[in-house]
Amino acid sequence: MSDVNGAQALIRTLVDGGVDVCFSNPGTSEMHFVAALDHVPEMRGVLCLFEGVATGAADGYGRMTDRPASVLLHLGPGLANGLANLHNARRARTPVVTVVGDHAGYHKAYDSPLESDIDALAGTVSGWLRRSAGAADVGADAADAVAAARTSPGRIATLILPADTSWSVGAAVAAPRPVEAPAAVPADAVAAIAAVLTSGEPCALLVGAGATRTRGLVAAARVAAAIGAPLYCETFPARLERGAGRPAVERLPRAADQAARRLAGVRHLVLVGAQAPVSFFAYPDQPSSLVPEGCEVHELGTVADDLPAALEQLAELVGAPAEAPLQAAARPELPTGELTLDAIGRLLGALLPEGAIVVDEGVTSTRQLPGPTAGAPAHDWLTLTGGAIGQGLPVATGAAVACPDRPVVCLEGDGSAMYTISALWTQAREQLDVTTLVFSNRSYRILEGELANVGAAASGPRSRDLLELGRPELDFAAMASGMGVPATRARTAEELADQFRRALAEPGPHLIDVVLPGS
Amino acid sequence: MSDVNGAQALIRTLVDGGVDVCFSNPGTSEMHFVAALDHVPEMRGVLCLFEGVATGAADGYGRMTDRPASVLLHLGPGLANGLANLHNARRARTPVVTVVGDHAGYHKAYDSPLESDIDALAGTVSGWLRRSAGAADVGADAADAVAAARTSPGRIATLILPADTSWSVGAAVAAPRPVEAPAAVPADAVAAIAAVLTSGEPCALLVGAGATRTRGLVAAARVAAAIGAPLYCETFPARLERGAGRPAVERLPRAADQAARRLAGVRHLVLVGAQAPVSFFAYPDQPSSLVPEGCEVHELGTVADDLPAALEQLAELVGAPAEAPLQAAARPELPTGELTLDAIGRLLGALLPEGAIVVDEGVTSTRQLPGPTAGAPAHDWLTLTGGAIGQGLPVATGAAVACPDRPVVCLEGDGSAMYTISALWTQAREQLDVTTLVFSNRSYRILEGELANVGAAASGPRSRDLLELGRPELDFAAMASGMGVPATRARTAEELADQFRRALAEPGPHLIDVVLPGS
Repeated sequence: MSDVNGAQALIRTLVDGGVDVCFSNPGTSEMHFVAALDHVPEMRGVLCLFEGVATGAADGYGRMTDRPASVLLHLGPGLANGLANLHNARRARTPVVTVVGDHAGYHKAYDSPLESDIDALAGTVSGWLRRSAGAADVGADAADAVAAARTSPGRIATLILPADTSWSVGAAVAAPRPVEAPAAVPADAVAAIAAVLTSGEPCALLVGAGATRTRGLVAAARVAAAIGAPLYCETFPARLERGAGRPAVERLPRAADQAARRLAGVRHLVLVGAQAPVSFFAYPDQPSSLVPEGCEVHELGTVADDLPAALEQLAELVGAPAEAPLQAAARPELPTGELTLDAIGRLLGALLPEGAIVVDEGVTSTRQLPGPTAGAPAHDWLTLTGGAIGQGLPVATGAAVACPDRPVVCLEGDGSAMYTISALWTQAREQLDVTTLVFSNRSYRILEGELANVGAAASGPRSRDLLELGRPELDFAAMASGMGVPATRARTAEELADQFRRALAEPGPHLIDVVLPGS
Repeated sequence: MSDVNGAQALIRTLVDGGVDVCFSNPGTSEMHFVAALDHVPEMRGVLCLFEGVATGAADGYGRMTDRPASVLLHLGPGLANGLANLHNARRARTPVVTVVGDHAGYHKAYDSPLESDIDALAGTVSGWLRRSAGAADVGADAADAVAAARTSPGRIATLILPADTSWSVGAAVAAPRPVEAPAAVPADAVAAIAAVLTSGEPCALLVGAGATRTRGLVAAARVAAAIGAPLYCETFPARLERGAGRPAVERLPRAADQAARRLAGVRHLVLVGAQAPVSFFAYPDQPSSLVPEGCEVHELGTVADDLPAALEQLAELVGAPAEAPLQAAARPELPTGELTLDAIGRLLGALLPEGAIVVDEGVTSTRQLPGPTAGAPAHDWLTLTGGAIGQGLPVATGAAVACPDRPVVCLEGDGSAMYTISALWTQAREQLDVTTLVFSNRSYRILEGELANVGAAASGPRSRDLLELGRPELDFAAMASGMGVPATRARTAEELADQFRRALAEPGPHLIDVVLPGS
């Protein structure tokens, strides 16, 4: 029997499989994993002060590398704390290997205080789920988990690791499993879509998943140009490659009426890695589906398929031009004066650095940003895929770990920021190059609108009060400083421009509290 | 058909059933609930910036009132964020009515971004779980939920409320359901325990659940005095009434070796509302059960029964004295100089105010407190029942809402505090009389010990680094100020005494960052 314990086999197998970062918030049942870090120096452990930060960071890391990070969580409550951002990662189809420590198998019957139903929790977000039966299995289980996470289109693979499988010896490192390449969309299926698109009836393309990267977008833009159809991107892409020199693609608006206007008159909607458009919430007397009446929906392959290749074949079949129309470089003038949302958009468009990774959880404050930033130097835009707020600061943290040479710009709502604010500490600890802009409007602004949207009876002072964040005022600069992140506050466009430039120029994390007018 | 909508019927039914506080973090699917607050002014809405704060506050409220508060959560991710503190509440058997808004029923098939398996999540913590089928059912469902939560020994009742059941009219307010009183323990069962206790063999009593309040403790102390047996309390009681004029009872130590020493030689362990003692975690080559070999375990009733009455009957049967031995009033001298854990214990013993509610999530920093605070004026001690950290600040928040005339003292570890730090904002918003002491030892100190306890191989710099919170330093005073809570920092016993006195004397919340020596 080997003298390798389960935890050591786990980490070595993960590293051999290309998983060399672990975002973690460990507890007693994970102590052997922690100890094993000293034996496998290739694994980088990144400490997070809350599990939702760890899972969100893994999401950001996976979106930027297309490789899973691992997440180390402590028992059921630790997993529970990480679920909301795993929900977002599931929606983003991010590859993640989640390792949840459990009590030793023989200990579970005693119902000690932390005992709970880990399997039920894990099942809600995991595309692959296994509980290791013994130390001898841990290596093989870990290799299977990595392969499952990496298999197109990416999923959350959760391995539950009872403490005794972790500390017992007799474990073996497992070799990486082969990961199948994404399947090709059958030629006749591509031809059928080509026939639809060349039918002469009004068509539109809606891309999502893997088709939101440059290669897929270029092919999609060629197709769209060939047939004169509009090209849309899903409302909340995991990672949209955009900016100067890349195809321009509009995200379908979240607001149902605006989405309806974009799709009005379309007879054929061709989905490429995107879901058929649906209202984010149900509203009284409003349809759930945003597909116009009389519009047929077609799908080019599935999210698991090689969509960029299918789009390239499609481009040939529809006789598309060899080159896609690309976004010209264009920056707005720097705004001055009041910090309106419009001014903020122009400011970001004017200053966004080359290669930026923009993490957008600005909710109501960032809806006007796509226009003025469209011609900024090429950058990536990461969005709130699953609607579970508290995602921005953690995803930015993980993206910065993934891409240490690229500037990360995190756009945060004040309400959302408070969910996982301790991500700032991890950014300071790891000296990550993240510039966070918190848009302080002192309210759950989106809900003020939603109160009206759902047709709730005219709201009075008590209901409005429950959406109000200004009493007392949240001082994000003070909180950030308390976690080691240098912070400033901006009340004018000039101040914001100055502070943003300085934050980008200095290494390490920074936070700017962007105080919106009237708040 | 009535023109009352489901949300209005829900809130009115809750209020009629005695549930008149709602800790909430709402979203779109809960907007009708929010709007209905203007129609039912008896319901107090308390806004929390994170769901784990809301659920923890409901736990604290329920422990202090023995009545449920309601919690309003937004869809699966909102519930997920609240699960860890619902886990603690489940272990505390706190009555809680959890209302989780869901998408409208017809909308779920569209798999919009926030769709997830709410029922699976809720099932892991709920003693009662129902999904309202229509607006007409909501009132009755809410009345059933309140009754379920209140039925002894208290549980989490979760009502999933699809948005359309909330906004549709035709709902009806339901009258409160009768709640059955706790069952009496059968006389022969009490007699059997009396026979054991008077057998002459070494016995010990271990009380938990409802037997940790004064009435049960007095009877238990009379029994223990009559037979000369030690009286212990479960390690993590939901609410232990203690201090001068109440029976003295030692909590069974968490450390297995110390617990074993207490129970060595005991032949009969009588459980009264407590579980048989079990190791908090499994450790290699250590037993899970802490019941000594050769010791028989007996149970006086179940946690659902009227345990104080059973203990009083038992006292009669064993010929107990009419009066229990009570703790004499005694305060230590105020310490001076270095802020050792021993000094902190004496300081709290010297200054703890009459009627204090102590919320203890101090982890390694508060283990030495029971002794020096035993003779302080009568107070309640609320502990981390389920081991899921991030409970202290929220529970203190809810306890302060429940008992506005009593001072709340929250003892927090620095690692634990960071889980749900935004509770401070709710304390400021509601101007709650909570004094929080954060014990800054700059580490997950408990895990440094656990790394050794689990027999993990000699730890190196990389594993130790992952338990270290000092890089960068967490400035709790800055963070608290940023959320509107006045805060100070204490480095000596004199400073702490001075700051603690002032915090107690002033209304509203305060935080003291207690910097432990060497950190």
